[in-house]
Amino acid sequence: MRQAGRSLPEYRDLRGDGDILDAIAEPELAAELTLQPVRRYGVDAAILFSDIVVPLAAIGLGVEIVAGRGPVIDRPFRAHEDLARLRPLEPEVDLAHVLETVRIVVGELDVPLIGFAGAPFTLASYLIEGGPSRTFGRTKALMHGEPELWHQIVDRLADIALATLRAQVNAGASAIQLFDSWAGTLSAADYATFALPASRKVLEGMGDLGVPRIHFGVGTGELLGLMSEAGADVVGVDWRVPLSVARRRIGAGKAVQGNLDPAVCLAPVDIVIKETTKVLLDAGGEPGHIFNLGHGVLPETDPGVLAQVVETVHYWQPGASSGEVAE
Amino acid sequence: MRQAGRSLPEYRDLRGDGDILDAIAEPELAAELTLQPVRRYGVDAAILFSDIVVPLAAIGLGVEIVAGRGPVIDRPFRAHEDLARLRPLEPEVDLAHVLETVRIVVGELDVPLIGFAGAPFTLASYLIEGGPSRTFGRTKALMHGEPELWHQIVDRLADIALATLRAQVNAGASAIQLFDSWAGTLSAADYATFALPASRKVLEGMGDLGVPRIHFGVGTGELLGLMSEAGADVVGVDWRVPLSVARRRIGAGKAVQGNLDPAVCLAPVDIVIKETTKVLLDAGGEPGHIFNLGHGVLPETDPGVLAQVVETVHYWQPGASSGEVAE
Repeated sequence: MRQAGRSLPEYRDLRGDGDILDAIAEPELAAELTLQPVRRYGVDAAILFSDIVVPLAAIGLGVEIVAGRGPVIDRPFRAHEDLARLRPLEPEVDLAHVLETVRIVVGELDVPLIGFAGAPFTLASYLIEGGPSRTFGRTKALMHGEPELWHQIVDRLADIALATLRAQVNAGASAIQLFDSWAGTLSAADYATFALPASRKVLEGMGDLGVPRIHFGVGTGELLGLMSEAGADVVGVDWRVPLSVARRRIGAGKAVQGNLDPAVCLAPVDIVIKETTKVLLDAGGEPGHIFNLGHGVLPETDPGVLAQVVETVHYWQPGASSGEVAE
Repeated sequence: MRQAGRSLPEYRDLRGDGDILDAIAEPELAAELTLQPVRRYGVDAAILFSDIVVPLAAIGLGVEIVAGRGPVIDRPFRAHEDLARLRPLEPEVDLAHVLETVRIVVGELDVPLIGFAGAPFTLASYLIEGGPSRTFGRTKALMHGEPELWHQIVDRLADIALATLRAQVNAGASAIQLFDSWAGTLSAADYATFALPASRKVLEGMGDLGVPRIHFGVGTGELLGLMSEAGADVVGVDWRVPLSVARRRIGAGKAVQGNLDPAVCLAPVDIVIKETTKVLLDAGGEPGHIFNLGHGVLPETDPGVLAQVVETVHYWQPGASSGEVAE
């Protein structure tokens, strides 16, 4: 469960109020923050404590994560000359701290670690908007108005994501997730033209490493078929699409991940258990299902409720704690 | 095109920086603000200058519309005793200013005026969250945790929406639109249980008036079939679902409305014309299509570009300016 930490008191104690990028930059601290929810909940995999903008900060773009708002970029991308600021990533140098975190975590975990990166479209939207957006107006204007520049930007971001993910796997991650958080703002036609090719470059570029590749975005109901074509082994689904419907859109041979509504976890626990069970019953099919929330854990969630969610999943899927991520 | 005014210099001159609720409360001003985009663009219908929270403010709930954020409610709903604050609406008294605006506008227009109201789910979400929300956590917690209270809230909000719409039609509006702006945050199962019945009460309650009923929300791809069942004659679609796909989900006998991505209107004009044409070509089918953006006009949109959009629609659909709304 992504962002499971932030609902935990032990997380808040350890993290304090400091900049999250500072916490990510300290391997011992970041490793402990990765491990906390695994210890607390007994989940079947860990997800690295990090952020999709870390590689952008690492190549020298000014990035700040503003609490309650999200990532803010110093000088938003506007024109061709900004391309030069997207220099290639050298993971062993630029992400040395993250890779050290991966090594520490893997040494302590007895479940798989999932590494991750931001997909080119979503990262590009931060660079162009200068921060989170409701409308993605500048991004879409550039995409449609200067398609050549757009494709150069996302191609460089694909290289950065690919280098990030390969390095995480080489450091010990057992699976990877490519987050195209905001792809759901695109029509299918625009996704196919402007987002899919770069995401495919990342996912196909991971093919030789033999680790499960998970691909996820929010509000992507209309895009599931295309996101599946991008080359993932597992497609994550938010709570808007029942998993049985998602399976048909995703097509044969791929697993699904999801999809309990995180907001449902604020309801009384008996409701949460029923809704968890509903997801499990709807998820049947080959080649398998990774139970998850349909989006990140809400900070106000009661950890006791999340523990009940995990227990419910294990009650119905006792084999799930075997350490296999994508089965 | 909803919120077409805010991209116009004449709108900004007239509106100034004042509270939008104050502007809505002045019939002469609100009528002029309704008419400005019709004059500028030559569109085939006007939409009333108002806001979905106006009836809530009118029955005495403390509502403020904060620029850049949205409606904020003084004392958010938490418990059963808050129900009493949702007293029945007496439109001729509570909405006298809005109805006066309708009368002035209808007297000056030679195209139909579309009235509107907020759907019960969306209004309830503002009351419960206290303002705009990204997660709708409190709303969903109350909905699942206290379903009886929830149904009482949305039932009262349905009565308020119905009274609002009936009064607008009686004052001269030729069509109505029910905005369930945030319904797209719900799974289909939750929509069917917690939102649909109250929306149906509103839409079916308009049946005897014989005006076209339009039903719209953002990100509702998975809900189009259910929203159609709620009793609309026209279902609005955002840009995420091609209209040809939307038609299949909506079912026979209903018109579609939409669905150019408002962010596309920030691209160079040749692209905007092509994308407008794409929508028109995809919209074919019976019983008709109301061209529109898939969401409100972005404030930074160039009015010249919107004029080109309208011209493109009229070039391809010369009959569209006949004054018929839902054909």
